Amino acid sequence: MNKREAARLALRAKLERGLTWEAIAGAVGRTPVGAALLVYGYAAATREEADALVRLLGLPEEAAAAFRRVPFRVPRQPWPPTDPFVARMYEIVLLYAPAIKDVAHEWFGDGIISAVDMTLELQKERQDGADWASLTWRGKWLPFRRF
Amino acid sequence: MNKREAARLALRAKLERGLTWEAIAGAVGRTPVGAALLVYGYAAATREEADALVRLLGLPEEAAAAFRRVPFRVPRQPWPPTDPFVARMYEIVLLYAPAIKDVAHEWFGDGIISAVDMTLELQKERQDGADWASLTWRGKWLPFRRF
Amino acid sequence: MNKREAARLALRAKLERGLTWEAIAGAVGRTPVGAALLVYGYAAATREEADALVRLLGLPEEAAAAFRRVPFRVPRQPWPPTDPFVARMYEIVLLYAPAIKDVAHEWFGDGIISAVDMTLELQKERQDGADWASLTWRGKWLPFRRF
Amino acid sequence: MNKREAARLALRAKLERGLTWEAIAGAVGRTPVGAALLVYGYAAATREEADALVRLLGLPEEAAAAFRRVPFRVPRQPWPPTDPFVARMYEIVLLYAPAIKDVAHEWFGDGIISAVDMTLELQKERQDGADWASLTWRGKWLPFRRF
Amino acid sequence: MNKREAARLALRAKLERGLTWEAIAGAVGRTPVGAALLVYGYAAATREEADALVRLLGLPEEAAAAFRRVPFRVPRQPWPPTDPFVARMYEIVLLYAPAIKDVAHEWFGDGIISAVDMTLELQKERQDGADWASLTWRGKWLPFRRF
Amino acid sequence: MNKREAARLALRAKLERGLTWEAIAGAVGRTPVGAALLVYGYAAATREEADALVRLLGLPEEAAAAFRRVPFRVPRQPWPPTDPFVARMYEIVLLYAPAIKDVAHEWFGDGIISAVDMTLELQKERQDGADWASLTWRGKWLPFRRF
Amino acid sequence: MNKREAARLALRAKLERGLTWEAIAGAVGRTPVGAALLVYGYAAATREEADALVRLLGLPEEAAAAFRRVPFRVPRQPWPPTDPFVARMYEIVLLYAPAIKDVAHEWFGDGIISAVDMTLELQKERQDGADWASLTWRGKWLPFRRF
Amino acid sequence: MNKREAARLALRAKLERGLTWEAIAGAVGRTPVGAALLVYGYAAATREEADALVRLLGLPEEAAAAFRRVPFRVPRQPWPPTDPFVARMYEIVLLYAPAIKDVAHEWFGDGIISAVDMTLELQKERQDGADWASLTWRGKWLPFRRF
Amino acid sequence: MNKREAARLALRAKLERGLTWEAIAGAVGRTPVGAALLVYGYAAATREEADALVRLLGLPEEAAAAFRRVPFRVPRQPWPPTDPFVARMYEIVLLYAPAIKDVAHEWFGDGIISAVDMTLELQKERQDGADWASLTWRGKWLPFRRF
Amino acid sequence: MNKREAARLALRAKLERGLTWEAIAGAVGRTPVGAALLVYGYAAATREEADALVRLLGLPEEAAAAFRRVPFRVPRQPWPPTDPFVARMYEIVLLYAPAIKDVAHEWFGDGIISAVDMTLELQKERQDGADWASLTWRGKWLPFRRF
Repeated sequence: MNKREAARLALRAKLERGLTWEAIAGAVGRTPVGAALLVYGYAAATREEADALVRLLGLPEEAAAAFRRVPFRVPRQPWPPTDPFVARMYEIVLLYAPAIKDVAHEWFGDGIISAVDMTLELQKERQDGADWASLTWRGKWLPFRRF
Repeated sequence: MNKREAARLALRAKLERGLTWEAIAGAVGRTPVGAALLVYGYAAATREEADALVRLLGLPEEAAAAFRRVPFRVPRQPWPPTDPFVARMYEIVLLYAPAIKDVAHEWFGDGIISAVDMTLELQKERQDGADWASLTWRGKWLPFRRF
Repeated sequence: MNKREAARLALRAKLERGLTWEAIAGAVGRTPVGAALLVYGYAAATREEADALVRLLGLPEEAAAAFRRVPFRVPRQPWPPTDPFVARMYEIVLLYAPAIKDVAHEWFGDGIISAVDMTLELQKERQDGADWASLTWRGKWLPFRRF
Repeated sequence: MNKREAARLALRAKLERGLTWEAIAGAVGRTPVGAALLVYGYAAATREEADALVRLLGLPEEAAAAFRRVPFRVPRQPWPPTDPFVARMYEIVLLYAPAIKDVAHEWFGDGIISAVDMTLELQKERQDGADWASLTWRGKWLPFRRF
Repeated sequence: MNKREAARLALRAKLERGLTWEAIAGAVGRTPVGAALLVYGYAAATREEADALVRLLGLPEEAAAAFRRVPFRVPRQPWPPTDPFVARMYEIVLLYAPAIKDVAHEWFGDGIISAVDMTLELQKERQDGADWASLTWRGKWLPFRRF
Repeated sequence: MNKREAARLALRAKLERGLTWEAIAGAVGRTPVGAALLVYGYAAATREEADALVRLLGLPEEAAAAFRRVPFRVPRQPWPPTDPFVARMYEIVLLYAPAIKDVAHEWFGDGIISAVDMTLELQKERQDGADWASLTWRGKWLPFRRF
Repeated sequence: MNKREAARLALRAKLERGLTWEAIAGAVGRTPVGAALLVYGYAAATREEADALVRLLGLPEEAAAAFRRVPFRVPRQPWPPTDPFVARMYEIVLLYAPAIKDVAHEWFGDGIISAVDMTLELQKERQDGADWASLTWRGKWLPFRRF
Repeated sequence: MNKREAARLALRAKLERGLTWEAIAGAVGRTPVGAALLVYGYAAATREEADALVRLLGLPEEAAAAFRRVPFRVPRQPWPPTDPFVARMYEIVLLYAPAIKDVAHEWFGDGIISAVDMTLELQKERQDGADWASLTWRGKWLPFRRF
Repeated sequence: MNKREAARLALRAKLERGLTWEAIAGAVGRTPVGAALLVYGYAAATREEADALVRLLGLPEEAAAAFRRVPFRVPRQPWPPTDPFVARMYEIVLLYAPAIKDVAHEWFGDGIISAVDMTLELQKERQDGADWASLTWRGKWLPFRRF
Repeated sequence: MNKREAARLALRAKLERGLTWEAIAGAVGRTPVGAALLVYGYAAATREEADALVRLLGLPEEAAAAFRRVPFRVPRQPWPPTDPFVARMYEIVLLYAPAIKDVAHEWFGDGIISAVDMTLELQKERQDGADWASLTWRGKWLPFRRF
């Protein structure tokens, strides 16, 4: 069983058992987004995480091995993105990244925000009668090495 | 004077006068990232903002008109992005957006996080002897209209 | 059953039962274009809409769940579009959007016409012995937030 | 003088003289969007239109010849579009055109809505304390010829 | 049965029955190219045409419905074209279209040759001991509407 | 002087002297489309043609050398084409070429219609109160050599 | 049976029977490269060639019809090419073609080397203790027709 | 002076002095194609070659340094190629390379024909009253190293 | 059995038998990376290597023939690469290759580092409490041949 | 003065003064490749490095500021790469990265080799009468953070 098939089984089981991402997050000791990435196959689970997933979702044993395998990360979508939710994220990077980069270099010097040693967090807020979502990428600053 | 030239003049003046993004942000009443977007030409300034920019940076009067004009937003970079700072942001959208979308729909229903009615915020933190950066996109949730 | 398969079944049933888009629109309380988007899988149905579709088209029960699910929106066509009907819509955006944008900004300031909080309407008219079609996109104006 | 340069001069003059698209539309006997297309160089002006434009905007005589020339139509933007205003129009064609096509064929048979024998109209409305924009494309229906 | 499958069956039957395009053209009352477009699925047949095709080729009844359906036109080839026959047609449009356009505008004003209200005709000629082919596109001239 | 600059000068002179493509065609002994291809730089002129062009259009002597040079043929347009006139030609090749190819192979065997040993002809006709244009590509049939 | 499947069967039979390209070439009266193109489906076989192939390789009768059919030529590889053997051929065209074109025009005037009325020949040589390969494309020179 | 400018000067001087590629080839001790590659900037000249070029063409001294520099090889053309001469070379690689590769591997084992340790030769022949061109790529066979 | 299927079987067997790349490398007498390339299908095995692989992994006999066949090398990933591990390698080539090329030409003259007559080696090191990886490409220098 | 112009000046001065990359490396305390990256504008120099560069190469004072600025990294070449030196590096990543990734994950777990916290080293060796080049990328291993 590969990671894609494990994801398919897990997503179906989540639907049938009426489980939320928060429930799955609780079971594996991750955040909801982190748990979703695990299920979708974008992370390698520890043995404990894999077992917890399989137990919670009632999956076959081989799914655990699939969840633990290191992924070959490929997008689940056409690119440039066509789904409006994803397209809005894309638009922000496309247009505003260079200005953000300029501010970051003023504060940190030359380097990058790690996309590996990082966390992603989604939050829901209520303000003035409307829903607001906030998505935070928090990564270690990696300075370019001199050589 | 178009917005691109106003940006060029403003960035040079910022360098020569040794101004920080925070100083510019203070002068126009925006956040550092918001001020950078204004200077780079990705926003339309109010009359007050435009005048404050021109004053602080010692720019010619026509620059104010350029800052106030509504921009035609085009990226300042090849695409897919080649700069490692931007490439890391791109990687996160490319790979992780669909899983984030799934969590968001569970919490909000069908819709998007607005890329127009939104704010972007960069922060610097110190943890365990290393620098960390966090970038937060906070946007109004827009549900799809039924018709 | 995923949304694509539900669409396939529904389109076949529509053909076999000789139903028009107006009949489907009447059953779900939407416009003909809105009903077509629902059937093609570009919208999330309410419980009532999903049940009405299933009843009218004689679909299996699982189709209702598929119709209610939030879609991952991807195009049903190669891109740039090759079908002459779609190619004409594409040509209009490709060539005339910047001039329309200019007029819109003069009237509304900086912002966009929402592609989420919006309606689409198709109409057929007769004039001087020929058929005319009109397609109207009506969307909420969203001004860029200052930050 | 080519059409692009005539457009540049005309847009600058419009700004300096504080003219609106409606004023220009009135002078040439077109709608605001039609007038903008003429100024941006996406249409061939009649002699009367060209003269009226030159008079109203105080342009050199050669500009009239440029406005009258048949254009080679190329987009004024990178593609796929990066400006959020244009990107929303693009998203609608990209995602929803096939469903609209289906409805249109049910009403009209096989054919297309003309992108040549057509009009485009933008309108501004006020509803429930918010601004709404509507954009209407009205084109002659052209059936495929049998041969 | 969709149009693609109907095409596949029809092309196989044409081969097995040893029918020429001219024979098919005669049966449906079209030209050979027009008949080929119908069989390949690039046109919507009338009831009479569909019945004639089914009869001549000995196809199942559902094929008639497929032939009558309005097509979603997509190319049957990679693009840019790799087959030398198609590549030569492509080369002519790629290189020579702008000069042809210039001549056409001098004769017709601003507008296009319709690709919908048109015919295509292929002919074979013998000259000086060699074969020559001529392909003629004859279309209605559509002037741009003034608005 | 390169071919592009010679074309620019020639097109300006054609406009100023009020010459038609037919007049130019007559002077060089080509068809109107052939003459336009020569002026636009898509053919190598004979000495007589080059001299006739320079005389008729009042161009500097070096233009004759430019017209005689063998061209490096590159398109004068973005690709896929954005101008509606060119886009209609492109659509025909994109969609209908494989069916035309099939008919051609039935009549000629395996081979191509030459895009080098060929002529292109545009004609204007009047029918039922409307203008019609016909464009004919006539090329030598080249069979694939056996080896 | 289509040409692709015929190729698959023929290549497997070639392997199992331990046949060389030279043996196949001998059987059909072509060169080794010409025989390979026939087997891979890039040429239309004569009746004699098709029968010889079927006999030599022990293929089913329908394979002969497939070999005789006129091919729709599409590449058997991603593009730009990723296989190092093909990539080296591609590099030569990509970089050196314009200089070769210049020499050819000096010798032949305006025209092309035919890619249809041509032969391709591969040869193996031994020189100074190393293997050398030479690939020759020999084609009829086709001058552009004047019109 | 960079290699591109040296090429421009050299090509102009070649034209003005009426020199052939063979004359240049003779002066530098290369073949005509080899000489053309040197002039176009696709090779690094030896001191003797550079001096000979400068002398023969009457170029400024700095041109010699430019000819001797190692090139950064980029194509002189859009890609995929649009010029018919280059397009025919491209078509051959695109379509026939995999079959040629198969024959080559049967004769040489796994490896490539070098595109670096190689020669290119163009020849003109007369046969049956027509011109024929042959282009030969002769390269060292490089087997993949085992590791 | 083709090389892709042989790879799939081999990778599964490697997992089930708990074999490391070093064990496989030992069995075939290659380095770990070399062994991985063999298994993944990017090299042609000798008879001894193929037999050793089949024995060690318990594969069917036909797998040996597949391992020995010369590969048609195509990437196992979308391109540009989306997996972060591969993307980092890509970034280095994309950005830093021209500067490396300049240093190499100063040391070696005009030529290339062979990607065929070469080895690749991965190593793991420990330094200051962190893991470091080093990847070395060592290739024969191939000077451009003069012709 | 931007980094691109500083690079241009520095490369010219390097040529005129006959300096090697090793000499520049010695002056700034970097490796030859590291020094080349600095000069080409792919790194931010320290004050000492910038001053040393300006002194050694005799550049104007502003060049120092340019060398110290954080770069916006964009490639200096078309992409996919056309220069054979770069194309060989590209080929290795394109084809062999996934197998290397597999070995790396077996040794290190899930993560990446840093392209920021890394060094690049080029070496020249002599073996069996031929030159060999080795390029080593040595980077810190970054494991994916769990969240």
